[in-house]
Amino acid sequence: MNTYNPLDDSALAELKQIVGEKYVWTDRDKLEPYSHDEVTGEKYVHYPEAVVLPANATEVAEILKLANRRLVPVVPRGAGSGYACASVAYQGGIVLSTERMNQVLEIDEVNMVMVVEPGVRTADVHKIALEKGYLYPGEPSSSDSSFIGGNVATNAGGLKAVKYGTTRQHVLGLEIVTPEGEVVSLGGKLKKDSTGYGLTQLMIGSEGTLGVVTKVLLKMVPRSKHVVDLLAVFPSAESAINIVAKVMQSPIHPLCVEFMDNKGIRCAEAFLNEKLPHSDKGYYVILSIDGNNEEVLDDQCVFIDELCTENGALEVLVADPVKIWKARKSFGEANRARSLIFSAEDTVVPMSCIPDVVQKFAELGAKYGVNIHIAAHAADGNVHADILKEDMPMDQWLEILPQLQDELYAFIYSLGGKLSGEHGIGYKRLALMKKYCNPVELKMMKAIKLALDPNRIMNPGKIFSLD
Amino acid sequence: MNTYNPLDDSALAELKQIVGEKYVWTDRDKLEPYSHDEVTGEKYVHYPEAVVLPANATEVAEILKLANRRLVPVVPRGAGSGYACASVAYQGGIVLSTERMNQVLEIDEVNMVMVVEPGVRTADVHKIALEKGYLYPGEPSSSDSSFIGGNVATNAGGLKAVKYGTTRQHVLGLEIVTPEGEVVSLGGKLKKDSTGYGLTQLMIGSEGTLGVVTKVLLKMVPRSKHVVDLLAVFPSAESAINIVAKVMQSPIHPLCVEFMDNKGIRCAEAFLNEKLPHSDKGYYVILSIDGNNEEVLDDQCVFIDELCTENGALEVLVADPVKIWKARKSFGEANRARSLIFSAEDTVVPMSCIPDVVQKFAELGAKYGVNIHIAAHAADGNVHADILKEDMPMDQWLEILPQLQDELYAFIYSLGGKLSGEHGIGYKRLALMKKYCNPVELKMMKAIKLALDPNRIMNPGKIFSLD
Repeated sequence: MNTYNPLDDSALAELKQIVGEKYVWTDRDKLEPYSHDEVTGEKYVHYPEAVVLPANATEVAEILKLANRRLVPVVPRGAGSGYACASVAYQGGIVLSTERMNQVLEIDEVNMVMVVEPGVRTADVHKIALEKGYLYPGEPSSSDSSFIGGNVATNAGGLKAVKYGTTRQHVLGLEIVTPEGEVVSLGGKLKKDSTGYGLTQLMIGSEGTLGVVTKVLLKMVPRSKHVVDLLAVFPSAESAINIVAKVMQSPIHPLCVEFMDNKGIRCAEAFLNEKLPHSDKGYYVILSIDGNNEEVLDDQCVFIDELCTENGALEVLVADPVKIWKARKSFGEANRARSLIFSAEDTVVPMSCIPDVVQKFAELGAKYGVNIHIAAHAADGNVHADILKEDMPMDQWLEILPQLQDELYAFIYSLGGKLSGEHGIGYKRLALMKKYCNPVELKMMKAIKLALDPNRIMNPGKIFSLD
Repeated sequence: MNTYNPLDDSALAELKQIVGEKYVWTDRDKLEPYSHDEVTGEKYVHYPEAVVLPANATEVAEILKLANRRLVPVVPRGAGSGYACASVAYQGGIVLSTERMNQVLEIDEVNMVMVVEPGVRTADVHKIALEKGYLYPGEPSSSDSSFIGGNVATNAGGLKAVKYGTTRQHVLGLEIVTPEGEVVSLGGKLKKDSTGYGLTQLMIGSEGTLGVVTKVLLKMVPRSKHVVDLLAVFPSAESAINIVAKVMQSPIHPLCVEFMDNKGIRCAEAFLNEKLPHSDKGYYVILSIDGNNEEVLDDQCVFIDELCTENGALEVLVADPVKIWKARKSFGEANRARSLIFSAEDTVVPMSCIPDVVQKFAELGAKYGVNIHIAAHAADGNVHADILKEDMPMDQWLEILPQLQDELYAFIYSLGGKLSGEHGIGYKRLALMKKYCNPVELKMMKAIKLALDPNRIMNPGKIFSLD
């Protein structure tokens, strides 16, 4: 492990010089919320030595220069809504919070670009885009709390990725501060760019290990006039999942295609204390379709209804969007309420392999004696499975979880799948990354990391270990 | 400049061992077609020491290992249809042609993925996708000749980028041989992936400087049942260009939005020897729209007709697609027929700035006494301008061209634009890249290059010089 220096009084004094006294926190009470993200379990909690809250890129640059001089780790952090512990300071040092950098800097309606600071909430970006008649299609389930900076860091996906892609497809440019403390703009309000390496794309999904994002140029798209949410209820996971490929190969280009298994539905029902349709034995496929022509949309609804019914649906109904999306988005919270300790897996496979993955989770749950609840961004091949500890003794849980994961990921990789569809690797999946990522690919990542961050100060020990 | 070793007899013997005697060429006649790409002018011609034609990734890996051992440059090459001299061996060594790696390996209809070797022609990918009822939307104007590998290397754009993005958006995964000769698969048949750095994206657009692409996983999309091509003719560049933002902000999501100026139209007309509508004084906006519902398409046509007419169009007509696209795609060839020596600029700016760029080209043409023909992927902000030498004395041409370009790119960068929208930097734009690319960004690119290619054998002297 790299040796870093502690954040001594002189370093803290210097930090206070940079950002102002009131934006350097060292009180344990104030550090607590920054000692973890959404991942539960003692082993994932770690306090930073200080939380520092810069106001702009210049201050971020000064902090990073200090960190290089003094060999202190810097962990960039957004809303802390991550599921991989990427924003927790396991090797001490500074948590650099972007929460004060929360301004919408520009709304360029002609070019359909919104320029924001990293600490703007995703939901606020949605709201502002809608007010102007546009859609910002990046919508992770955590949108109400997540920051855009965090969405960039993890290449967040979410509900509308099936139509619009992940954050990678929504970002036209970035301002970053490099690990050595230089400010640089990458990309621009440009729909095309073949001017050298795609550094914007390299930064997206690098989980704060290659620099700090200080500005984001987001692409907005024209907003459709009408959206219809359909809920198709099936009697089994298999029959539900099998409909997905059929829809995707049809002429319809859906906005969302979500799957929830029966355990997940019941858990959400209990958590929300709200009756959900066919919760006794149903498996859900939630389909959103959008467009500007109501007649066409009606035709598409009929088409989907028929397709689902022919393929065994118990019922297809136009869903109450508020209720159905609340149920879907509460998936993680509802599972947490059932079992404070749980492991959120974020498997991604070719779409055609989803039935195999769902089947595998059923087998693994039975074999290891745990409940596994499933919600999938089904058309993206992205299966979220929350493995619940519930009342299993901690010793047993800590013993079986790695065994279960090993069996799971050996299977996922045999299908051409990967560890993470949208949550990232962070610290949580470090051991799995080492085991399953192709060693040549890992070597390339490490070489790039060292080339851009020679003193290894940016978010050390995330994605991979350099030791 | 880095010192490389010549390709001596022993190196040639070793290469013949790897790929077979008949696939190592050193005859000057056979080397000629590999001594240039589509860029004209003596200074851009350079013969490699040998052209080597491997059959597969294993042979590519052996060639790169040899190149590292012997310090010999390797220049990967597709169809040679580039516009930036990226595939010409200015520092000698090996041109590694991918033309024998031309197999379509898999068509996965369920996941809508086509797996091809790099030497497959773009037009063949279109054809195969169409036969299966899909669309492969990557369509540079050179599609009939270009290879997919070259499209990846330059992040090629083309006609349908306005709706579907550039090659970056069409590639789900790559097999590459690293500069040090290791074979690795990046990405996969995955619609999402947050498993470490986005190396697939880093490779795309890196112009053969970071490895050799040996397999490409292409995303296909469902094919629309109907396509309509509309030609709107305007009396001035300004009135034509002004319509573009209006269309893009409307609810219509066009497949193509192309602009041709009057000089370009006349030149194409003469080259094709075919009368084009309003060629006496018209400026064209060619709009394609697609969909599955004829009525909706009809409504959209009416909408566009009215919008264009209200904004000064002389005529809006349903175009003969064969004729109109032949005219548009002949732009480069027609200009070459007019003037063998010409400079193809590939400026890209925020869409809203296109009128300024078109105006600037008019001023520069008048100031420097050259004809400049313009065709733009207008909704992408990507303005192609071919500056024709015609009968200007060579001395004068060589003197004014850099002056003109300097004035041009100072202006382009002042608008937030860049050197290249889709052609790349290669060797041709090296000096401009050094001058206009942000030095921090350039430093990052060089650091990545050296980290992945420590012996600097991959396509040296392209995009930037390491010296």
